[in-house]
Amino acid sequence: MSTVGPQRCTIDIEVRYIETDRMGHVHHANYIAWFELVRTRLCVEVGVPYAGIEASGYLLLVTAVEVSYRQPADYGDVVQVTTWIERLQSRGMRFAYEVRRGDTLLATGATENVWVGSESRRPCRMPEEVGEPFRRAAGLW
Amino acid sequence: MSTVGPQRCTIDIEVRYIETDRMGHVHHANYIAWFELVRTRLCVEVGVPYAGIEASGYLLLVTAVEVSYRQPADYGDVVQVTTWIERLQSRGMRFAYEVRRGDTLLATGATENVWVGSESRRPCRMPEEVGEPFRRAAGLW
Amino acid sequence: MSTVGPQRCTIDIEVRYIETDRMGHVHHANYIAWFELVRTRLCVEVGVPYAGIEASGYLLLVTAVEVSYRQPADYGDVVQVTTWIERLQSRGMRFAYEVRRGDTLLATGATENVWVGSESRRPCRMPEEVGEPFRRAAGLW
Amino acid sequence: MSTVGPQRCTIDIEVRYIETDRMGHVHHANYIAWFELVRTRLCVEVGVPYAGIEASGYLLLVTAVEVSYRQPADYGDVVQVTTWIERLQSRGMRFAYEVRRGDTLLATGATENVWVGSESRRPCRMPEEVGEPFRRAAGLW
Repeated sequence: MSTVGPQRCTIDIEVRYIETDRMGHVHHANYIAWFELVRTRLCVEVGVPYAGIEASGYLLLVTAVEVSYRQPADYGDVVQVTTWIERLQSRGMRFAYEVRRGDTLLATGATENVWVGSESRRPCRMPEEVGEPFRRAAGLW
Repeated sequence: MSTVGPQRCTIDIEVRYIETDRMGHVHHANYIAWFELVRTRLCVEVGVPYAGIEASGYLLLVTAVEVSYRQPADYGDVVQVTTWIERLQSRGMRFAYEVRRGDTLLATGATENVWVGSESRRPCRMPEEVGEPFRRAAGLW
Repeated sequence: MSTVGPQRCTIDIEVRYIETDRMGHVHHANYIAWFELVRTRLCVEVGVPYAGIEASGYLLLVTAVEVSYRQPADYGDVVQVTTWIERLQSRGMRFAYEVRRGDTLLATGATENVWVGSESRRPCRMPEEVGEPFRRAAGLW
Repeated sequence: MSTVGPQRCTIDIEVRYIETDRMGHVHHANYIAWFELVRTRLCVEVGVPYAGIEASGYLLLVTAVEVSYRQPADYGDVVQVTTWIERLQSRGMRFAYEVRRGDTLLATGATENVWVGSESRRPCRMPEEVGEPFRRAAGLW
């Protein structure tokens, strides 16, 4: 049993002007795109680039998303977005996310993702070739 | 005690090409924008247009969002998005959402919203002038 | 020679909160999505739904876009977006656009679109089956 | 008279999944957001961060945009977006843009921007304190 915990991946994201709304802050929907960007990067760091997953006939669909907002992000900010695999199952996984600006926690969130065949669009088991890298990233080794 | 239940508001939304992604379906982040659009409409129908709320010095911030995706929406679809007030409190409220295409339920979701002063950006109580219409919309009369 | 002029298509679009930015107005990139929405509608009215075009093996790619902004659109506005075919050629066409709020002209624009095969992604001639409806829509009959 | 030419600023942008559409490529509207991001960076490098411009009571409004698309960008790509001041005038300026993926030119574009007071929202002259840095960036020194 591992005591290491899951592999964490953090990226810097510069707030885009278009991401703000008339309240003056980043509109809450944009965090979903940020989550996707860091999830993409984690897959690269794990050794399983997501474009390659799709090329080999699989999709990792988002079936649920949740975000909790604590402090706003603003134009001019560079925020740090972190993700890790919170739960790994045979047919999907759950990613957790944190958005920070330096020491300030701005938001937390999670996505539920399931494997589907890109032709059938039916749920399936995690492709064998990605099992080992994802289990390692989840801290299960 | 009311047995009426909350006022429901439904709008038709035509899927935009830009809302699709390379999987061929509507990208999951767009549902957040759809929720906002029907929430805006509910406020109008309740008699409290949101632009007026902001003009009178208040904001109704989104502090949490959750979406559960069941079936994809596609370019060419017109979907029906419904909202209602699920919980009304002195300092905020929770809206529930459903996205349907005809008889097919595509997604469900919720947002938590809190009142803040538009100058102070501090949490505050629901403005008195909107209390009655929102309580009625929540089915509490 | 026709003196009728091209067929015009106008839709109402309700400004979305997410479309605003910290200046308080609609961010200029959103007009591109509005153009696409009315172009989609024109194709439907012409009798050539764009989803059907893609299903029959063609794409109508945007190869250039231009927008000129005169007055801002704001949250709470319903704007009228109009399009028509400004030029029709064997391998593509040019759509013109106007955005109005009542009598006020907010923006004008245009897109250049070319036909490509959806497999080859190579430029091709306009599919024969859509030639007649598009020529009629362009006012060339 | 300078023979140096304008200061060029280039940033790397990683394509986001949400930026793709059902054609499989980046949707054309997203280039507008990329232009804004590199324009923001140029202002920083010039010594005039745009957030500071707004804080001192001015906005630099986009009054026109044009983009010409040559080759698509795809998920998995990192693109290089470059901008420079193409024309500097007392009341506004024109930025030019190029989007490349390595040696391949994907798109070119331009925006027209004008100075307005953030309170009045009326056109005005370029604020004196930014004149020198922008003239230098435009290669006029």
